[in-house]
Amino acid sequence: MDYVLYYWPGIQGRGEFVRLAFEEAGERYVDVALVPEEQGGGAAAMMPFLQGGDVARPPFAPPFLKAGRNLIGQTANILLFLGPRLGLAPRDAAGKLWVHQLQLTLADFIVEIHDTHHPLGPTLYYEDQKPEARRRTTEFLAARLPKYLDYFERVVERNRGRGPWMVGDKLTYVDLSAAQVIEGLSYAFPAATRKALAERPRLAKLRDAVFARPRIRRYVASKRRLAFNNDGLFRRYPELGG
Amino acid sequence: MDYVLYYWPGIQGRGEFVRLAFEEAGERYVDVALVPEEQGGGAAAMMPFLQGGDVARPPFAPPFLKAGRNLIGQTANILLFLGPRLGLAPRDAAGKLWVHQLQLTLADFIVEIHDTHHPLGPTLYYEDQKPEARRRTTEFLAARLPKYLDYFERVVERNRGRGPWMVGDKLTYVDLSAAQVIEGLSYAFPAATRKALAERPRLAKLRDAVFARPRIRRYVASKRRLAFNNDGLFRRYPELGG
Repeated sequence: MDYVLYYWPGIQGRGEFVRLAFEEAGERYVDVALVPEEQGGGAAAMMPFLQGGDVARPPFAPPFLKAGRNLIGQTANILLFLGPRLGLAPRDAAGKLWVHQLQLTLADFIVEIHDTHHPLGPTLYYEDQKPEARRRTTEFLAARLPKYLDYFERVVERNRGRGPWMVGDKLTYVDLSAAQVIEGLSYAFPAATRKALAERPRLAKLRDAVFARPRIRRYVASKRRLAFNNDGLFRRYPELGG
Repeated sequence: MDYVLYYWPGIQGRGEFVRLAFEEAGERYVDVALVPEEQGGGAAAMMPFLQGGDVARPPFAPPFLKAGRNLIGQTANILLFLGPRLGLAPRDAAGKLWVHQLQLTLADFIVEIHDTHHPLGPTLYYEDQKPEARRRTTEFLAARLPKYLDYFERVVERNRGRGPWMVGDKLTYVDLSAAQVIEGLSYAFPAATRKALAERPRLAKLRDAVFARPRIRRYVASKRRLAFNNDGLFRRYPELGG
């Protein structure tokens, strides 16, 4: 199947969760964000899908995926679709739902991570909401970060499968996403995340195991992998703490 | 199948999206929030699943559903599971993904609606973040509410099926959820929502069509349906505007 991924150029963002799945599976895909605008790529390529009058099932926002004749939006929904096709989901229906449930919980976590620097919403610049960002970050680091990490640590702990994974004996897409979130947190809040991982060895191990996968290592070392930066979900603003 | 829904007592909240699906389908379910604690219901009944050491696949937060031997968390995931079983989802795989995608976009919208009264996060009281709530609400009403409502209006418009629905010729669970969100917005921001719906006739029609369904009417008139209140997702604080 022909896979074409649409996402904002210049950031990892939510597109990265989809990229990691393709990369781990060794599946070919076109990453439109990496195609220059002159060659029909970039942000301009997304606009017909978001605004165009002739798309029957328009996505609300990127990332979205063209997979043959399907157009699929919402990160977790894209992974729900790709998981079985890329060999990154359990085979049984209950397992598929469980992995998806964890992915949706990660999605909730990501919104809260994002909102540390944008508590007053996505329509204002960070610079216009700095004192509020500081207050929200303080609450986030004190209460929400531990709550989510404790939860995911428990999920790994209760998994009866062998290995460092969340579900069963095999890596699934939610392991890739969880490792990416931990990596993003390490960029945004290095000291707080180091401390948090020291107390949650299973999550530290899961992150290490994901980034030690041969294909993931090759991807991270490649030019295709963008660096974290302060335009994405995870941002490093030392004045916020962490 | 035996269905048992777990959610916080006293509010509609996210549990309501699941309730509306059961009610529309005429399916029997136990709503644990309505069972007194003395009879094993209420908030206490949820705790073993959230904190207990013997739950293999613990949910992060309510709502969650026991369906036979399955334990399923995350509202959109519960509806993904229930949709086909209750006759509230398309039969084809692409249609199922599309309805789910719309449900996830509603979920994003709901977080932003919630954050109008809790911009600094869920760990602080509303009373401790009133000026921030006012700023976030102003932005929400000016930019985000129109953006989401325009999107869903367009989805109904582009649906080639007959009737007022979002997907195909038949009501699906996302129509129920969208109608509930519009109803919640009418409670929280009555003037702004009235104006917004006057400009988006398809959404107004969809909401009316859902709440005119015989089973939904009976449910809304019953004691099982709680009133909106200022402990839930949708809150009426006149000082915030709207």
